[in-house]
Amino acid sequence: MRIGILGPGNVGRALAGAWRAAGHDVVIGSRTPDEVTPHDAGVPIVSTASAVDAADVVVNATPGTASLALLTSVGAPALAGKVLLDVAVGMTEAGDLSHLRESLGEELQRAFPDTPVVKTLCTIDRLVMIAPDSLEGPSTVFLSGEDATAKKTVRGLLHDLGWPPESLLDLGGIATARGQEHFSLLFLGIAGGLGSYRFGVRVVPLST
Amino acid sequence: MRIGILGPGNVGRALAGAWRAAGHDVVIGSRTPDEVTPHDAGVPIVSTASAVDAADVVVNATPGTASLALLTSVGAPALAGKVLLDVAVGMTEAGDLSHLRESLGEELQRAFPDTPVVKTLCTIDRLVMIAPDSLEGPSTVFLSGEDATAKKTVRGLLHDLGWPPESLLDLGGIATARGQEHFSLLFLGIAGGLGSYRFGVRVVPLST
Repeated sequence: MRIGILGPGNVGRALAGAWRAAGHDVVIGSRTPDEVTPHDAGVPIVSTASAVDAADVVVNATPGTASLALLTSVGAPALAGKVLLDVAVGMTEAGDLSHLRESLGEELQRAFPDTPVVKTLCTIDRLVMIAPDSLEGPSTVFLSGEDATAKKTVRGLLHDLGWPPESLLDLGGIATARGQEHFSLLFLGIAGGLGSYRFGVRVVPLST
Repeated sequence: MRIGILGPGNVGRALAGAWRAAGHDVVIGSRTPDEVTPHDAGVPIVSTASAVDAADVVVNATPGTASLALLTSVGAPALAGKVLLDVAVGMTEAGDLSHLRESLGEELQRAFPDTPVVKTLCTIDRLVMIAPDSLEGPSTVFLSGEDATAKKTVRGLLHDLGWPPESLLDLGGIATARGQEHFSLLFLGIAGGLGSYRFGVRVVPLST
């Protein structure tokens, strides 16, 4: 699969390396590709437009507060028909809640109606995203989105990162992205309590 | 311990029954004690003021959007020196985010500086609160609050509900209550995905 990852930060780089290792054709898109540190594993860093153009799946790994403006500059026609796998959270690093009134995932889906948005992975650290087995037991990754085919594609990509099917919980439509994004506040609390960002959460159902 | 539970709803009734069964002296406070259905297990239902007056620990199990006004009517002097165990979430049932700009726990602590507030249990359904063993494996309950002595008291009360010490994660000060309360959005998403409100979440750390 051809994957264009927008955002040359730590999250984008981690995902790029893992999907490349799984055999996908991956590029990273940057607004300033010439000024960015090369990727450790040699994933090409190209312009944002080139990364979108070549991709079947576009991954939004840009800072959440900048994502809408960046994708708007790419334009709805260039994004139409591609899956948008959104891992960003629409809050500032300072935890300013004014950015959390709604969710970035919902906002993106509304802005790009011809691009199915699937929100996932935004509840865990990048090192856990690509190494679910690093945790002491199974944990849960959530999916939110309107389009069943796009979700199936994303499930496959999560599997390629090491997430088994039983770890994936489909929350429903893109409106449920809000819960995934707001979890970032509890994420920070748990990280403070544990002294580490490297943890997962497992949904524990009733015993049968 | 003398426990006054404010709010004669399902959450208050469940906690009242469980703490009474553990040997505590429990009453439920209501604004309209004469108009409320009696408690299944005979826990007395008294006025809000009486419930606070007799208590070492006051439990806020009122609707989160009404809690501040109710406790303000009780008054800071009546609450001073008592532990306020806050299980409420400051959102409407419709999920209106405007009530989630900050947290109810923080708001209550600011309003009643002489009453140590401990936020806990608000991430799980009432039936899970009182029966952690009903789940298929261990799960996590969070604590937020400024006062170590009050937290120790609350830990003891959680233990009496069946929560072992290793299930409790102290997130830090009352500012971390925000994360617990905002989890209600992901809670609703997970409940939709599972088709049940009866689940827990377990924090899964790195394997050692």
